[in-house]
Amino acid sequence: MNKAYLSLERHFARLSSLNDAIGILCWDKEVIMPSGAAERRAENLAMLEGMRHEILTAPAVAELLEQAEPGDDIWRRANLEEMRRLHAHATALPGELVEASTQATARCEMVWRTARENGDFAAILPTLSEVLRLTREVAVATGEKLGLSPYDALLDTFDPGTRQTDIDPVFTQLAAGLPELIGTVLEKQNSLPAATPLPGPFSVPRQEALGRQLMQQLGFDVTRGRLDVSTHPFCGGATHDVRLTTRYDETDFIPAMMGVLHETGHALYDMGLPETWLSQPVGQAGGMTLHESQSLLMEMQVCRSNAFAGWLAPKLQAAFDVPAGTAGWDAQNIHRLLTHVQPGFIRVDADEVTYPAHILVRYELEKALISGDLPLADLPAAFNERIHALLGLHVPDDGRGCLQDIHWPEGLFGYFPCYTLGALTAAQLREAACKQVPQIMPAIANGDFTPLLGWLRENVHGRARSASMPQIVQDATGRKLDASAYLAHIHRRYVERAEDA
Amino acid sequence: MNKAYLSLERHFARLSSLNDAIGILCWDKEVIMPSGAAERRAENLAMLEGMRHEILTAPAVAELLEQAEPGDDIWRRANLEEMRRLHAHATALPGELVEASTQATARCEMVWRTARENGDFAAILPTLSEVLRLTREVAVATGEKLGLSPYDALLDTFDPGTRQTDIDPVFTQLAAGLPELIGTVLEKQNSLPAATPLPGPFSVPRQEALGRQLMQQLGFDVTRGRLDVSTHPFCGGATHDVRLTTRYDETDFIPAMMGVLHETGHALYDMGLPETWLSQPVGQAGGMTLHESQSLLMEMQVCRSNAFAGWLAPKLQAAFDVPAGTAGWDAQNIHRLLTHVQPGFIRVDADEVTYPAHILVRYELEKALISGDLPLADLPAAFNERIHALLGLHVPDDGRGCLQDIHWPEGLFGYFPCYTLGALTAAQLREAACKQVPQIMPAIANGDFTPLLGWLRENVHGRARSASMPQIVQDATGRKLDASAYLAHIHRRYVERAEDA
Repeated sequence: MNKAYLSLERHFARLSSLNDAIGILCWDKEVIMPSGAAERRAENLAMLEGMRHEILTAPAVAELLEQAEPGDDIWRRANLEEMRRLHAHATALPGELVEASTQATARCEMVWRTARENGDFAAILPTLSEVLRLTREVAVATGEKLGLSPYDALLDTFDPGTRQTDIDPVFTQLAAGLPELIGTVLEKQNSLPAATPLPGPFSVPRQEALGRQLMQQLGFDVTRGRLDVSTHPFCGGATHDVRLTTRYDETDFIPAMMGVLHETGHALYDMGLPETWLSQPVGQAGGMTLHESQSLLMEMQVCRSNAFAGWLAPKLQAAFDVPAGTAGWDAQNIHRLLTHVQPGFIRVDADEVTYPAHILVRYELEKALISGDLPLADLPAAFNERIHALLGLHVPDDGRGCLQDIHWPEGLFGYFPCYTLGALTAAQLREAACKQVPQIMPAIANGDFTPLLGWLRENVHGRARSASMPQIVQDATGRKLDASAYLAHIHRRYVERAEDA
Repeated sequence: MNKAYLSLERHFARLSSLNDAIGILCWDKEVIMPSGAAERRAENLAMLEGMRHEILTAPAVAELLEQAEPGDDIWRRANLEEMRRLHAHATALPGELVEASTQATARCEMVWRTARENGDFAAILPTLSEVLRLTREVAVATGEKLGLSPYDALLDTFDPGTRQTDIDPVFTQLAAGLPELIGTVLEKQNSLPAATPLPGPFSVPRQEALGRQLMQQLGFDVTRGRLDVSTHPFCGGATHDVRLTTRYDETDFIPAMMGVLHETGHALYDMGLPETWLSQPVGQAGGMTLHESQSLLMEMQVCRSNAFAGWLAPKLQAAFDVPAGTAGWDAQNIHRLLTHVQPGFIRVDADEVTYPAHILVRYELEKALISGDLPLADLPAAFNERIHALLGLHVPDDGRGCLQDIHWPEGLFGYFPCYTLGALTAAQLREAACKQVPQIMPAIANGDFTPLLGWLRENVHGRARSASMPQIVQDATGRKLDASAYLAHIHRRYVERAEDA
């Protein structure tokens, strides 16, 4: 490697420190900050974001990127490539467009809170039109700079390397099988005895202790992270300081517990990134799809399995001091509670069987919104029609329809597909892992996550961004991402009700 | 004002945001951060400090400072002056000296932890010599740049505008009266019945609830701040986000309670700074002496008074659910507990009567260390000799002697005098406030801090750095800072045992 390359490494190490600072300040904003500090904190964060942008777009960086020679090492080569991608994204947009876009999304988000509450699409139409118009401009400008179509340019922001041509065939395969599969699953579920609900109350300290116990069981290093409470659960923080949050409901411990297991999946990915490259772009987690694959692999694939439910049941009884033999606290009923399927309007409340339907609708519609094929005014009707086609539900109002998510008002187009790409990736990774290391699920039946975590460290976490998401999936599973592992998993767990699912 | 001045305001507003970010990250480090993140956090903070230094020393700033015309407004004029002072401090030192100094203090601090534990001065002598040598270089270089003597240059870092010539006569006056006064106080105390100790345990949640109640009683705005726990209590955070900490001892609630009242004094200062100037240098609190005066005014002057003890006693009984009439929970005994005097070795445990003795010793010796009049190897003997002269105590080992404080190993020379200057200022401010607004203490007897806070807002907090500390004291009290109000206060409270003390 040459001097220019080394100089870039130092430059990006500073960015990494700035990212850490922003990460902690954002976490603090959601978890700790007193309400009266909100305005000032927003200013502080905008200033730090501005600094990040300045460092990334400094004229010296463009020169160094041209001159840099990374040598033969594949990590350095990938590092330089990722630096170039970040630089291209950052320099693609004129300052006024970034500014206009930030202001428009801030305004729209404000309007959205009321519009969602009132199910009033007309109220948000003007501001959302403006967000969409500016997002299109962003997509076109970024696409020109990176040689991508507008929608691919947006995708690349959240999921480097993923293209519409990767997604379309996979989602087509999924859409073809899903509606019928949902029907079969519900039929099967209705033929079985209903799950026995577990009556609370479940005190917050006990739920929290359970969450901490499970996190550590999965492999979370408590000297390098935390568990706290926030309104919207997330996994954030900084390098060597991975912080996840949940929220507690005293009448039902399952949502918080599964939330913690989900966020722990994210956390384990961050904790498994290679130490050597932590401060460099190549050392970061590989985009939204891989990140979501790690949380869903833990939450959905593994922690809703019969194997885990068997280990979990006595732990739950101990956690909540349930007398031995109390009805409902056996492994079979716990498993039923964890795998209950119920089509509903709200994406974030959906089970793993019906969740993809919500995404297929959003993916199709946001592509059409960005291309201009779907006028924004027609969104509610189109949304409701597709939800009915895939889930058989009549959306009662736009608050429970196309206004339920914050993504579009925030200008986050190209983000939704990653959720389901993550679910499909999780299924395909688990399938491959269990084939390659047969003791993974038997170990989990004993609460031992070491074999699984070892496989993930080697095949996913430890690779960071040294390869693209499609390449990592190909290398780990022997084939491109498709929907077959996911569909097979749903079939085995929800139709066959197989013991190993 | 001209364009250059306005440009500087924008420049320093960015610094203010960076200071806020650093403030929250430092708070997080002490209160929240998992242990494994320590190394990385230190790197992050060093990077942000580096950015702060870069922004402050950018060539453009020097030019703007030369060209800037602030106009007639005294705030703008003071703002520009403070910008120049900050710039002079930042540019006074060559980068290698800053770097060497940072490394030397980091090394010395590490050695200090063990050396203090073992009372082993010889062990720290080499690294502390290096710290002292570099601090002298810093003092000389800064002094040359600012036209100050080396020791004044160090003082100016912590307490802008305070000079050795301000301190010497005041401390001489104090040293002349103190040893005899301590003797008289102890004699008087011994002639009275001993205070009845209050037996615990006092649960942490109850102590915490009490702390929150008292903070708010004093005027702390909980929408713009927090109370948490840390090993070393402090008041930190950011603009509109003032965070104080304490630590709890279940056998005795008084240390945590008085700690909270002390830190609340600091917090009220920060919360009372003028909104218009919050992002500018002139809008910051006026240095260590004024800051300490605000915490000591609350903790020592007001909250250990008979007036406050009378209001406090029933609140304490309620806070800890003490049956009515339990011995020791009456106002008189509470007041005795809060005003117990006991000469001891440890500065941070000292009462308000003996505390200045610890500072007089350190002030005299650190001046001699910086000037070179006192060889570092002779420090322990000199320290012990002075402690004996002022407090009549034989220091048993250096761990309880000259090694007890972290300041010198951290290179903080010129910091110690501010503690006692703060105590003297607190006494002089209270004397003036009560003369000008006679209802202040009667209101406090009813738990009403509004008259006092109003006076402080107008005469201290609201002035920020628009005037120097000596000027603010002069304007608020009608005379220069001296030791008379403090000595009179000690005499009235501890010798006369006056009802209004």
